Amino acid sequence: MKKLKIGICGWGNVATGLFNTIENNNKFIKSNGNLEIEIVVIGARRDNPKCDPGAVKIERDIFDVIDHDIDVVVELIGGVDVARDLILKSINKKKHVVTANKAVLFHHGDEIFKEANSNGVKILFESSVCAGTPIIKLLTEELSANKVTKIAGMLNGTSNFILSNMEEGSDFKPTLELAQKEGYAEPDPTFDIEGMDAAHKIGILSSLAFGTPLPPDDFYIEGISKIEKIDFKYAKDMGFTIKHLAVSKLNQDKIELRAHPVLIKKDSYLANLKSVRNGIEVETDLLGTLHIAGSGAGQESTASGVISDLVNLANSNDNILELDSNRNIELVDFMSLSFQYYFYIESNITPEAVEKITSIFAKKKIALESIAHKEDLKENISHIIVITDLFLEREIQYLYENILNLESVNKIRSIRIESN
Amino acid sequence: MKKLKIGICGWGNVATGLFNTIENNNKFIKSNGNLEIEIVVIGARRDNPKCDPGAVKIERDIFDVIDHDIDVVVELIGGVDVARDLILKSINKKKHVVTANKAVLFHHGDEIFKEANSNGVKILFESSVCAGTPIIKLLTEELSANKVTKIAGMLNGTSNFILSNMEEGSDFKPTLELAQKEGYAEPDPTFDIEGMDAAHKIGILSSLAFGTPLPPDDFYIEGISKIEKIDFKYAKDMGFTIKHLAVSKLNQDKIELRAHPVLIKKDSYLANLKSVRNGIEVETDLLGTLHIAGSGAGQESTASGVISDLVNLANSNDNILELDSNRNIELVDFMSLSFQYYFYIESNITPEAVEKITSIFAKKKIALESIAHKEDLKENISHIIVITDLFLEREIQYLYENILNLESVNKIRSIRIESN
Repeated sequence: MKKLKIGICGWGNVATGLFNTIENNNKFIKSNGNLEIEIVVIGARRDNPKCDPGAVKIERDIFDVIDHDIDVVVELIGGVDVARDLILKSINKKKHVVTANKAVLFHHGDEIFKEANSNGVKILFESSVCAGTPIIKLLTEELSANKVTKIAGMLNGTSNFILSNMEEGSDFKPTLELAQKEGYAEPDPTFDIEGMDAAHKIGILSSLAFGTPLPPDDFYIEGISKIEKIDFKYAKDMGFTIKHLAVSKLNQDKIELRAHPVLIKKDSYLANLKSVRNGIEVETDLLGTLHIAGSGAGQESTASGVISDLVNLANSNDNILELDSNRNIELVDFMSLSFQYYFYIESNITPEAVEKITSIFAKKKIALESIAHKEDLKENISHIIVITDLFLEREIQYLYENILNLESVNKIRSIRIESN
Repeated sequence: MKKLKIGICGWGNVATGLFNTIENNNKFIKSNGNLEIEIVVIGARRDNPKCDPGAVKIERDIFDVIDHDIDVVVELIGGVDVARDLILKSINKKKHVVTANKAVLFHHGDEIFKEANSNGVKILFESSVCAGTPIIKLLTEELSANKVTKIAGMLNGTSNFILSNMEEGSDFKPTLELAQKEGYAEPDPTFDIEGMDAAHKIGILSSLAFGTPLPPDDFYIEGISKIEKIDFKYAKDMGFTIKHLAVSKLNQDKIELRAHPVLIKKDSYLANLKSVRNGIEVETDLLGTLHIAGSGAGQESTASGVISDLVNLANSNDNILELDSNRNIELVDFMSLSFQYYFYIESNITPEAVEKITSIFAKKKIALESIAHKEDLKENISHIIVITDLFLEREIQYLYENILNLESVNKIRSIRIESN
């Protein structure tokens, strides 16, 4: 039986979940993972009334954890700057690091991996994407022989919870409040609902799948806060639902990277992932399309991922993740991509509204697949629903400006249609 | 970079697929898997016109492969008895073994694992269940910390192809012929369509998930050959579709193991796996419900799984699969399980038919959730469709005998309803 001595940094929900899981599921970790985990020290700025660490030594300064006789630092403090310092200091003291922190990896992963390589220690981070659902190991180990061509996924549980509820008829705001009440959304939900969390995750997956450095953070990122309940109704009428999708795919020699809401066919695999479930679809040359889905958050799921990293650390003798630092990452210019679009346009009830709108699309030679006009006599407005053919992303600004310039038009919003 | 010297035994579709993949995807195997694979020798009783092995040495007696200077024997000959001999002889010569052969593992796995343990070599078999879709590694590595409580899956691509086509309106026989033409079904399809292939796979998964020896082969196994197109129609009317499901679950201290067709809710995850796709649903204490699905067959998918085994072999220093030989496997008596049932009963058109049938259920105190009676005036018969409440499996024989004894009844068949 292998043994690992670990120090846990952080003492919130995730850390106490890990502590309890190591105690409670010890039997499985030993028999399945052939591993005994000894928690030597916990870095906790304050006590957590929900969890008694028993006889385990507590350090109030989390950096003191590194000085203990441990093999692994488990970083569960979250955030970026302090986490980066902690991870780099741990590496320099030749401690392996397991982290569930996608933000620090996204922003400082290249530096962290490089330091780890030169110090001969490992960084593992299964729980940083979709918690314990084993997406990282799938990409880095099980698919070794494959050329990955595309990853698309729903990577943010909060967004998916809100959209799934809106699909059933709820409004955005009360659903967000419900998500906060249920603990699925943070008090400040910006990071989740504006797409950054999903963007960090697809950035990490992209880097693993295509063997590139981590991408810059200026790729196309859009959240779900502008979507309204009625969009689900119109989407449904056409066989679609609305999801927040993060995509990384090979596009000629570049990488197409984006995270935004999409209309997606209701009978597709990703459309059927509801509530806080996360899932990805991977396309490869050998396996075709592979799906994996599971709970994307929660202290027990995260603990499962952290422990799978520890088991991997104990039982593997592979070299450390070798980044091909010579290989540059070149992202496709988002403006050069083409999408089909769903438009919701709200106008006064006037006979010329539709004609004027269609003429704007026509000026840009954008063909329309369908156009529907519904009068809401109670509100005295028209809903004009347009489904376009493919057009270049760079045209969207012209369309918005010119349609909003029409006297009759009050409001416009749009959602891209994901073709597959 | 690690290096492994391998010998491939067998030179059919799967073996040549592996050969080609090692050549073609060498770049990915090296960079992702940190592994150089050298094919030293091939055991081929005859040449394969579809693949030129180049300068690689060919042995006409596959057992001669073992004597070469290789680290791993890759067993791709299929079948049971010769494969068992080959694997055991390889183990005794201290060669690791990678196999895609579920039948030999199901029947002789315990012996093979024991021999491997005492010889200090490893047996890896990712491709034996669902080809390259990484279900085995998921269960044995990524879920180490979890207590698995249930595995349910569609594990046979041929059955799923046939049922998916029947769902769209095809009859059984021409669909089977189409499957044979497309290469999804063997010339003798018995093994697939009568459930044995799925049974072997769930037996292997069950043993891994619950840490028991392999199960005996007398658990409940039923295939899809009795299902008719009209069953899909009636199933659909009630929100179901029909799938072949293999299940292993903890049921108190025993294991419930079964492979048979089921009515399953149309909006469930497994119901939406179509054609030759395979997929499983795993329930665990930490992760909740996890799904994974991919192509369940094909030479490239199988090659992907075999290579992931080789990468794992090169990069891991874990002990060999330790079977808890003290732990007995005790299966739940299938007759003690309860299911809801769908019955299709064909009777002459007579006013008393329904009453007589319901009285037989009533005698066994089996409540009926619904009963529908449709007259087919063209054929001059009635279809009587019964959905029962839960009843004990041991009552089924009584029902069949007594319903078939009714003068008016010509035909009866039934499908269990999977509750989740």
